[in-house]
Amino acid sequence: MASLPNSQCMETSNSPNENTKPTINVACIRKCIKSMPKNLKSKAVETVKFTKKIGEDDPRRIVHSVKVGLALTLVSSLYFFRPLYAGFGQAGMWAILTVVLVFEFTVGGTLSKSLNRGCATLLAGALGIGAEYLANLCGDKGEPIVLGLMVFILATSATFTRFFPDVKRRYDYGVLIFIITFTLVAVSGFRVSEILALAHQRLSTILIGGATCILISIFVCPVWAGQDLHYLIAANIEKIALFLEGFGGEFMSFPENEDEKSITTDKDKSFLVAYKSVLNSKTTEETLANLAWWEPCHGQFRFRHPWGQYLKTGALATECAHHIKIIHKYVYLKPQVTSELIKKIQEPCRIISTESSQALKQLSSSIKNMTFPLPETETHIRTCNAAANDLKIILEKPYLPDQDHSQETIQLLFLASVLIDIVKSVENISVSVNELSQKAGFRQQNPKAEKQQHQLLHRGIVQPVNNFDISDNSNCVVIDVHKLAGGQETLAQAMEREKLETRS
Amino acid sequence: MASLPNSQCMETSNSPNENTKPTINVACIRKCIKSMPKNLKSKAVETVKFTKKIGEDDPRRIVHSVKVGLALTLVSSLYFFRPLYAGFGQAGMWAILTVVLVFEFTVGGTLSKSLNRGCATLLAGALGIGAEYLANLCGDKGEPIVLGLMVFILATSATFTRFFPDVKRRYDYGVLIFIITFTLVAVSGFRVSEILALAHQRLSTILIGGATCILISIFVCPVWAGQDLHYLIAANIEKIALFLEGFGGEFMSFPENEDEKSITTDKDKSFLVAYKSVLNSKTTEETLANLAWWEPCHGQFRFRHPWGQYLKTGALATECAHHIKIIHKYVYLKPQVTSELIKKIQEPCRIISTESSQALKQLSSSIKNMTFPLPETETHIRTCNAAANDLKIILEKPYLPDQDHSQETIQLLFLASVLIDIVKSVENISVSVNELSQKAGFRQQNPKAEKQQHQLLHRGIVQPVNNFDISDNSNCVVIDVHKLAGGQETLAQAMEREKLETRS
Repeated sequence: MASLPNSQCMETSNSPNENTKPTINVACIRKCIKSMPKNLKSKAVETVKFTKKIGEDDPRRIVHSVKVGLALTLVSSLYFFRPLYAGFGQAGMWAILTVVLVFEFTVGGTLSKSLNRGCATLLAGALGIGAEYLANLCGDKGEPIVLGLMVFILATSATFTRFFPDVKRRYDYGVLIFIITFTLVAVSGFRVSEILALAHQRLSTILIGGATCILISIFVCPVWAGQDLHYLIAANIEKIALFLEGFGGEFMSFPENEDEKSITTDKDKSFLVAYKSVLNSKTTEETLANLAWWEPCHGQFRFRHPWGQYLKTGALATECAHHIKIIHKYVYLKPQVTSELIKKIQEPCRIISTESSQALKQLSSSIKNMTFPLPETETHIRTCNAAANDLKIILEKPYLPDQDHSQETIQLLFLASVLIDIVKSVENISVSVNELSQKAGFRQQNPKAEKQQHQLLHRGIVQPVNNFDISDNSNCVVIDVHKLAGGQETLAQAMEREKLETRS
Repeated sequence: MASLPNSQCMETSNSPNENTKPTINVACIRKCIKSMPKNLKSKAVETVKFTKKIGEDDPRRIVHSVKVGLALTLVSSLYFFRPLYAGFGQAGMWAILTVVLVFEFTVGGTLSKSLNRGCATLLAGALGIGAEYLANLCGDKGEPIVLGLMVFILATSATFTRFFPDVKRRYDYGVLIFIITFTLVAVSGFRVSEILALAHQRLSTILIGGATCILISIFVCPVWAGQDLHYLIAANIEKIALFLEGFGGEFMSFPENEDEKSITTDKDKSFLVAYKSVLNSKTTEETLANLAWWEPCHGQFRFRHPWGQYLKTGALATECAHHIKIIHKYVYLKPQVTSELIKKIQEPCRIISTESSQALKQLSSSIKNMTFPLPETETHIRTCNAAANDLKIILEKPYLPDQDHSQETIQLLFLASVLIDIVKSVENISVSVNELSQKAGFRQQNPKAEKQQHQLLHRGIVQPVNNFDISDNSNCVVIDVHKLAGGQETLAQAMEREKLETRS
């Protein structure tokens, strides 16, 4: 790992008066050796930093590692304690094998492998004993031939089933264990007479290993694949929302002076690339959904939560991200001249960007909080649709671009046509999230209090009340909005309280 | 699996005169039971058909299954034959475990797992014996505590390294085996006194299992991950070429009458969707490249063939496929009116489509045949670039679209701008394939004969020679082109021969 004296230390002198043999530069080697501890140290520091980063990125990784260590140490005690060892003997090894091979990062992964291992062992064990019995009937000479043939046929056909997509997805590990167990039981039986006792010993140690894994996995800081999928989908929708927000708020507003431009470029642009992770999210989503399928109910997730609907929503989000990828290159498009047409296009584009961003944000938080989407989401989408219709009309009309800016106009028109697609995409996401909230039994939000306050603040006409008027018994009620906003009180309760206070 | 009497058989009579209790429709149940064998049969037929399809899609799957069966049967003979069983005893089990867990579809996969397993077992075995020795020094009471602590620390830290991307990619299986072996050796040692003999027995059986897998994997119809990657990249480039060819040849030619249109829609459109598999090819490519890294030289592939360059080329092809996805929806765009502008755009678009398709086809076949790309590829790309420049000029110029077809014009202009991106993309692919052909040491094609013939046919001015003139000793040489094309003779050799023949 350390830097060894390299070819730089081997010098061929070019001067004709000197010896032309390559000479080893002693000073260089000395320097290399001297710098070795330093290089080693810097490598070590780098490794430590990288390790720290891996841990900090997702601290659950550290917890998982400790959990595996714990499970393995517990299971090793089968060897350490005399009474246990007397019971299981060398079969304790199967518990160790089981723990290492079965313990996965998520509960779903651990359950999937444990259940696969358990069921496959039972099934293959029974079949193996049956095969042993059959082979026994064929006499001493026939037995190895019949057993060999059976092992061959079973291994071949079981291996072939691993190419079936459904088997591959859910039972791949089970098929492997099935082949191993069948072969071991059928073949060991040829020598070991107490095959049933052995099978019992192995099964119980495998059960101990599997149970240890499942218990630790579920009860010590569990990592639920379902929960991860849930938050991944919500996060993906939010990333798209953030892009559209930035796109609509910042880039669709054409700065008129240079100062404004420089401010724009100084700002944090992370939201511009965040959506890119959504493009390649499909594999992760599918893996998580497969693992989540195995998980029991946890928190607000039922057993058989509609994970398929999450995949559908995720696929729609990915589709939307692909549309965004197309317009991404127009982020830096700032038309220099604001012609009549550009102005006409600009406004609906801005509306689509900001409103669909709002809708997506609400959908994302609705998933996160497991509540039905707010009715406002529908309003945002309706506004988007109206703007999209405006754009469609503009696109269908004949137009006369400015002489020197036809390219800009084309780009803007194209941008508009992609934004229309994005509106459709957002609408689809909304429909899918609504479906999800019904299938998954999300909570209905109680928007009453919020709505009333909303009406009071925005729609009602508030007449200014003079403080002096309150002193005499008028019907005026003064509500302290700060009090209301801070506490848990609803508007109705507050009005009641204020009335009582003024009366007393 | 069979259809059971379903809810249709439970009927609630709606007529007010009849009994309102749900009645079981006996006839229906009878029907269901009768149809059961039929249903079972149809399910069985379906399964057989599906199995057949899986095998036909890639017959190597059947071969692989048979190979696994063969390896397992061979290894089981450790149990069957008395002299071998006397040597290994129950340790023969490790050979069976090794074969099932290590035998993968590709040679690279098998090698990767075998080497991981072998090295990890050796390293962990040595460490385990060391740990055993250390723990022994701590006395009878301290031994289990020290061993438990060491198992915990090692399992925890080894599990954590599995989160390092590099470790995950190449040594994941090795780390698992490392944990298993270390724990087993350290912990078994506490009871089994002949730990070295046991380790030797296990190692040799693991070696036997691993060697059996490797030998069968390499010498019986091998499936090379590297070769698969090689052909996958070539096929992906060809798929893009086919789309562009279809797009340029068929869809950019605007039919003028209805008959022509109907012919177009009747044709096979498979090339229009073939490119879609390229979009999601990344994961497969990366997996294959990882496995190929382990493979020794085979056929024309050296050990340490530049697999990374294949990934680069593949990524560029995927990028190009993404551009194609954008224009895919314009496939059915057939401008109804051929305005001056549309005509202007149409020609360079057609040139770009057909020429870049030609270039890609040549690049694909250059990869397939492992030869340097033909110089013609460069010519095609130059033509593309010229057409792209024409388009750029059109896009930059102010224009005046027809009154009623502005939307069509915008779409065409946008299509043009994406085609310009595609040209850039194709150029990148060409550069990457050239780099690949250098790094991988592809054969130089000997284009001399072809070139000279080319020059003769296209550039030279051929003067007709009268057959009668040859009879008297003129300096004319008649070359039989059919002879030349069929044989291995170069043009120079042919001229020499003909000269000699005419002289004699």
